[in-house]
Amino acid sequence: MSVVEQPRETQQQDINADLGFGSVVSRESQRLLNKDGTFNVQRQGLPLLHSIAVYHYLLNITWPKFLAYVTGSYVITNALFAVAYILCGDTALSAFGPQPMPARFWSAFFFSVDTLATIGYGNISPNNTAANVVVTVEALIGLLGFSVVAGIVFARFARPVAKIAFSRNAIIAPYRDQRALMFRIVNEKSNEIVELRATVLLTRRKPGVDGSREYHPLKLERERVVFFPASWTIVHPIDNESPLRDLNQESLTASDAEILILLNGFDETFSQNVHTRSSYRAEEVVWGARFQPMFNPPREDGTISVDIRKLHDIQRVAL
Amino acid sequence: MSVVEQPRETQQQDINADLGFGSVVSRESQRLLNKDGTFNVQRQGLPLLHSIAVYHYLLNITWPKFLAYVTGSYVITNALFAVAYILCGDTALSAFGPQPMPARFWSAFFFSVDTLATIGYGNISPNNTAANVVVTVEALIGLLGFSVVAGIVFARFARPVAKIAFSRNAIIAPYRDQRALMFRIVNEKSNEIVELRATVLLTRRKPGVDGSREYHPLKLERERVVFFPASWTIVHPIDNESPLRDLNQESLTASDAEILILLNGFDETFSQNVHTRSSYRAEEVVWGARFQPMFNPPREDGTISVDIRKLHDIQRVAL
Amino acid sequence: MSVVEQPRETQQQDINADLGFGSVVSRESQRLLNKDGTFNVQRQGLPLLHSIAVYHYLLNITWPKFLAYVTGSYVITNALFAVAYILCGDTALSAFGPQPMPARFWSAFFFSVDTLATIGYGNISPNNTAANVVVTVEALIGLLGFSVVAGIVFARFARPVAKIAFSRNAIIAPYRDQRALMFRIVNEKSNEIVELRATVLLTRRKPGVDGSREYHPLKLERERVVFFPASWTIVHPIDNESPLRDLNQESLTASDAEILILLNGFDETFSQNVHTRSSYRAEEVVWGARFQPMFNPPREDGTISVDIRKLHDIQRVAL
Amino acid sequence: MSVVEQPRETQQQDINADLGFGSVVSRESQRLLNKDGTFNVQRQGLPLLHSIAVYHYLLNITWPKFLAYVTGSYVITNALFAVAYILCGDTALSAFGPQPMPARFWSAFFFSVDTLATIGYGNISPNNTAANVVVTVEALIGLLGFSVVAGIVFARFARPVAKIAFSRNAIIAPYRDQRALMFRIVNEKSNEIVELRATVLLTRRKPGVDGSREYHPLKLERERVVFFPASWTIVHPIDNESPLRDLNQESLTASDAEILILLNGFDETFSQNVHTRSSYRAEEVVWGARFQPMFNPPREDGTISVDIRKLHDIQRVAL
Repeated sequence: MSVVEQPRETQQQDINADLGFGSVVSRESQRLLNKDGTFNVQRQGLPLLHSIAVYHYLLNITWPKFLAYVTGSYVITNALFAVAYILCGDTALSAFGPQPMPARFWSAFFFSVDTLATIGYGNISPNNTAANVVVTVEALIGLLGFSVVAGIVFARFARPVAKIAFSRNAIIAPYRDQRALMFRIVNEKSNEIVELRATVLLTRRKPGVDGSREYHPLKLERERVVFFPASWTIVHPIDNESPLRDLNQESLTASDAEILILLNGFDETFSQNVHTRSSYRAEEVVWGARFQPMFNPPREDGTISVDIRKLHDIQRVAL
Repeated sequence: MSVVEQPRETQQQDINADLGFGSVVSRESQRLLNKDGTFNVQRQGLPLLHSIAVYHYLLNITWPKFLAYVTGSYVITNALFAVAYILCGDTALSAFGPQPMPARFWSAFFFSVDTLATIGYGNISPNNTAANVVVTVEALIGLLGFSVVAGIVFARFARPVAKIAFSRNAIIAPYRDQRALMFRIVNEKSNEIVELRATVLLTRRKPGVDGSREYHPLKLERERVVFFPASWTIVHPIDNESPLRDLNQESLTASDAEILILLNGFDETFSQNVHTRSSYRAEEVVWGARFQPMFNPPREDGTISVDIRKLHDIQRVAL
Repeated sequence: MSVVEQPRETQQQDINADLGFGSVVSRESQRLLNKDGTFNVQRQGLPLLHSIAVYHYLLNITWPKFLAYVTGSYVITNALFAVAYILCGDTALSAFGPQPMPARFWSAFFFSVDTLATIGYGNISPNNTAANVVVTVEALIGLLGFSVVAGIVFARFARPVAKIAFSRNAIIAPYRDQRALMFRIVNEKSNEIVELRATVLLTRRKPGVDGSREYHPLKLERERVVFFPASWTIVHPIDNESPLRDLNQESLTASDAEILILLNGFDETFSQNVHTRSSYRAEEVVWGARFQPMFNPPREDGTISVDIRKLHDIQRVAL
Repeated sequence: MSVVEQPRETQQQDINADLGFGSVVSRESQRLLNKDGTFNVQRQGLPLLHSIAVYHYLLNITWPKFLAYVTGSYVITNALFAVAYILCGDTALSAFGPQPMPARFWSAFFFSVDTLATIGYGNISPNNTAANVVVTVEALIGLLGFSVVAGIVFARFARPVAKIAFSRNAIIAPYRDQRALMFRIVNEKSNEIVELRATVLLTRRKPGVDGSREYHPLKLERERVVFFPASWTIVHPIDNESPLRDLNQESLTASDAEILILLNGFDETFSQNVHTRSSYRAEEVVWGARFQPMFNPPREDGTISVDIRKLHDIQRVAL
């Protein structure tokens, strides 16, 4: 079976099982969904530069990096306009007169700052028509540019971003008279999330078939919590209908299995829905473990608290 | 049956079958839904200019066109205020003095830029009360105007726009022991869309009845994907309950059939729901074809990638 | 039964039937829901001025009114600061010198404009510490004030507002072998609305019981349309289970009946959900009528169009 | 049973009953959910300062406090830049000359205002390169800073905040031939909320088990109102399936019971969903009471009004 010509039977099945990841998987085992929720599928053929991509990028870089870009653009813009004023001739700015370089450049540069930021002290002023035209252009660019920057600065603050942390491992734990797959999550930010809902899927290579993947939803003991003040342990009981019922650690790993997770909830600070994804590969599932409680012993005054640094703490148990 | 007087029976049926498109169709076969998702029904009697229409227009034109409008408005506004300052008399601006036209106009123009952009170098300043009043007006207009422009510039960046591309053709392909109607989609932008849901309808002229349309929902093999990292092939199996079961290429074309599609999903970059529409006319449905895989052969390091330029590639097969 | 002391039986029923309107109705027949969707119930005891109320008000007034408020505030603010500068003494501004009133006021006023709008020509400048302090305050107020105005201006453009027009009358029309209550709606703006959903309720005074209201949901022949390009006729068939089955024009009017409507849909321009309400009183229901088609005869080139001015056109028919 | 080592049986049950609050409760009886809807569970181990936390904080403080912060930052920033200009030497600003302290400081301070707010009168101007560099930095900081402040000011106005007030007490009232748990709510703001939905849970310590909590959803007589113009009485009938059926005031209090409430609805002013939470502890439930009507007697003109100050008024009745 090559990638281009698939037997009819297989292709149909793939379409059926497809969740948007497709069925082509490489011999090298790579995860489908990275721990941070980004997808491990590259899209080729996208236009090089989308305004959306730039915007997305500027929203997601760190503050120091963002401020470096802003400062860099600001300095470069002023330098370019300084050159433009110099090209307008000796009479362009009132300060030029017999002023030689590089002093002239700096006069032009600081005059540009004066203009771009719409300060306009007037200690230097445009003296000929060419310089006035450049001022006209620079004022417009300054106002539009700073409004874009202002918008992005604000969006960086105001955008709802669920920062839900997942336990490092999923576990297979004793649960009632059987076993269950469990992992737990905690809200790492101070905003409150309510009505949180989880969707969990198992994907693995189909046994016997070369390279083709299958996807199974995993039924949860509770799909949704109304409140999410502390932590939530998401539990898939491995009962007779679970796709995990006949699998063990070896068969899970051998079939490149991966647990895919999508969470969505409502962020109260921003009044918007938020989504988070993550996944566990077979190697990240610990068979025979239990989560350590995250709750601290209650204080004297009765205050209950949870220590989110204990998120990953597990304890081995027999299955 | 004229448009104005319908037999009672027919009108009732129309209301029942109506999806908002109405049942009046012309002899000329025109599509209901354009490929870009806009509707092919004109609304007459709308007020000429809505603020929403202007806003909508300014959001959706290209960047060069948008910037041309902004620049044009900026130049025209300054020119109009230049005229206003000139009308304020010889003493209006400190620069006027004995200055003749057109030099006076340019002084006034650049002073207007100075004011509208709130730079205020002060090399030219308002000298009489009339000019000061115009300055007062221009400052307000400048501040309001630039805030509107800033808002729209920002909205152009920050608005969630699903750019989902549809395969050029829908196909009728072999599927299990029967056939299925399929088309596929890909996310053309770099933003991620999750929880994507599809609604698909078939509309065609009713056989026998003059001009009246009927609408049938098409049941999908999968109505929703949780993840959408690469492509999604949407499949309507043509089973015994499908409205397509007794139709073929000729009868579909003869009855002006059209497949209407509505997609909605959640855009992660903007934390908002997005909708996309499109349609396939009977002529755009290829009978006896299959989609070529879009996935590239996996690379040595195991990276999976999809080539979105292969979206439209189909291959003829016997049905 | 007085308003304050209700027999136990009745109060319980009321709670049960309550939709948020309560059961106290006056002898005067007043509608519950105004045609524009506002409620006809006043809330007493609200704090006098909420920031939300002010914001809401400023979003919903007409543009001329809004601009009048902005201009008014701008002039008044400048006048107040002009007085402040004058109170700072003869040396406050460079222009004051021996300048008498009212010329001094105007100097101070235009200097205030210069400062509030952050122009700063410098032809007048603050000369003593008091004036400088006032400048410091005015600059902050100017920047904050204009940013609020800018935000509201932008929100007025960018807020999703469904402008769905309802037919003036609801009608009782022949429908299949029975009757149906119908009304129709049209999108009056150029933005597109999809996935529109209708909820319709009948409310009337309970027969026999003094003043108490009952509420019944009306089952619709179609609760939701996927597309809404033209118009939608909403139909409640009056079958054996309809609360309208035994009512006629007189009994409907006598019992102060009102048809309450809530529409919600998704606005594509703003990527947000929108809601609209309206209602029909018994007097606004026409018994024995049918809506005239709103579709124009198709043009030669096959273009379909709907004339939204025909929204209200009905034609009498026998029931 | 200590907090760290739980018997296997218990831990499993806890996971099952967990709603995100966890099962560790202290001997001191503390409420889980505060009256204002914040959670009574502390999260330890959060990073000290999140941008989201700062943003959230600045959105939720009172206006006077917010304006105090803004004014404070403005004064401090200008003072810091004043020091920077002084450090640039005697020739930094045109006003310095032989000017001694503190006059020099104030010149520098007011020049900083002039620059930060981008006024730029020009009566004082930067004279050496160091001062010009500081101006360049201050202009950028001013523009970015004010855009952040502007964004937050606007967000404070424009953010949907449901201000739904809850009756001080929940009551156990006679209801049909049985009893019901009731509480009532009112919209305290002038914005309209529609499609309001309530979720109500009972939580109490499990009888017999040490410290472990159980959670039960309470079935409501009506879970959702379409309109919410006045008040809404939320009713849980205590029937044979109610978890409250065998409880009385003493057993409820003894088991640290708490009624947890989540409301969500659609805010029409902001076109967004809003959520509100609250809770009633056992001590806040009044056994044998009924709510006084909030409706005023209808006025002569038929106007109906509700007095939201009567929200908490109850009247004792026998059960």
